[in-house]
Amino acid sequence: MVSFTTPWRNWKHVTKLDPDKNNSQDIIKAVLEGGTDAILVGGTQGITLEKVKDLRAKLKWSKIPLLLEPSKAEAVDLSYDYFFVPLVVNSQEKWWAGGAHISWINSLKTVFGGFNKIPWEKIVIEAYVVLNPDAAVAKVTKCITDLSVDQIVSHAVFADRIMHSPIVYIEYSGKFGDPNVVRAVKDNLTYSHLFYGGGIDSRQKAEIMSKYATIIVGNIVYDDIGKYKQTIL
Amino acid sequence: MVSFTTPWRNWKHVTKLDPDKNNSQDIIKAVLEGGTDAILVGGTQGITLEKVKDLRAKLKWSKIPLLLEPSKAEAVDLSYDYFFVPLVVNSQEKWWAGGAHISWINSLKTVFGGFNKIPWEKIVIEAYVVLNPDAAVAKVTKCITDLSVDQIVSHAVFADRIMHSPIVYIEYSGKFGDPNVVRAVKDNLTYSHLFYGGGIDSRQKAEIMSKYATIIVGNIVYDDIGKYKQTIL
Repeated sequence: MVSFTTPWRNWKHVTKLDPDKNNSQDIIKAVLEGGTDAILVGGTQGITLEKVKDLRAKLKWSKIPLLLEPSKAEAVDLSYDYFFVPLVVNSQEKWWAGGAHISWINSLKTVFGGFNKIPWEKIVIEAYVVLNPDAAVAKVTKCITDLSVDQIVSHAVFADRIMHSPIVYIEYSGKFGDPNVVRAVKDNLTYSHLFYGGGIDSRQKAEIMSKYATIIVGNIVYDDIGKYKQTIL
Repeated sequence: MVSFTTPWRNWKHVTKLDPDKNNSQDIIKAVLEGGTDAILVGGTQGITLEKVKDLRAKLKWSKIPLLLEPSKAEAVDLSYDYFFVPLVVNSQEKWWAGGAHISWINSLKTVFGGFNKIPWEKIVIEAYVVLNPDAAVAKVTKCITDLSVDQIVSHAVFADRIMHSPIVYIEYSGKFGDPNVVRAVKDNLTYSHLFYGGGIDSRQKAEIMSKYATIIVGNIVYDDIGKYKQTIL
């Protein structure tokens, strides 16, 4: 019997902050006071433990959960509330779809002094399906993005039924995705909760994807704080 | 919440029959009447749907569960009680550690007319860690077998904590493995039940591995029926 405490099922809106970007006081204030449900700290490039800790310090007054999405095993700051660990289901490489995680478990065993001493309750797997071939994450992880709707759903169902992954994350990173794809995935999940990310920069786009998923809003907070606030329904 | 019905937790001894081998009347009789708890039908090479169906027909009077371990998507006979689907955690190739399964889900969707119509209750994932580099399965699936005990356990813990796999299968295929490895894996599993296979051809070897795992007994049934019977404790 596997049981999860699943606070993320109640989140409508998550803000993604990149430790490698300029997280100004204005941005931090807008995020902490704007009504988002959780803050996900992560990025694809240029991530160091120092930057992760700097951003954590800026968020010290947060009353909402702080989630670290570790980009690599070294950049893990244990003071975050959860580790949202990406596993890229449609990567062609074993490394991104399990290999890195096995290696990480081995290093955590050493850090914590035993496999059973790892804080498993803080570790939450996000099964990513990355669908924008132009996104940095798709290139780095060598994703297959040329997929039919059924093939996309097959990836999500694998994460759901085979991996019992707490989260399936449909990621269009930088581009607004196809709502029909997101709906088809949502309709076929049983255990997993759905996250959607990519191109949400207006109230209308937030409303469309919120019908099916917790929306992850990232880039717009750096581009236009006013528009960012409109994505919080 | 994920819940499994887990009859396999009560099995002490499973007999593995290979559809590509000569399953004589004497062998079938010894297996059906000898006291094994379940029959796992599978092999690595030369498997066809016809051979799988032939062996199923020979087992039609079985009172114990019949498990099909599909070698490839085409060779699936739906009259078996369960599909025990291997996923090779220490393969270097994404295909054997998820890719084939995603593709299989897509074809099952077509066969059954919907992802939700697939008989999920019959599908049981076996997370294999293959540790004998000379075994055909290790070569075919390009396994990394040169692993420390901690690295082996890390693979098992990935299957357990990340994949919530119902079964972890330590496979030495053709060789008797290291009981210390099997014990270390057993000590670190929380959700997953442990299977052990490889080189069990005597009562003594059966007793050693039965302390930690459900034992899978295969080749000896073809080599020496008398010795096979001794492995059933």
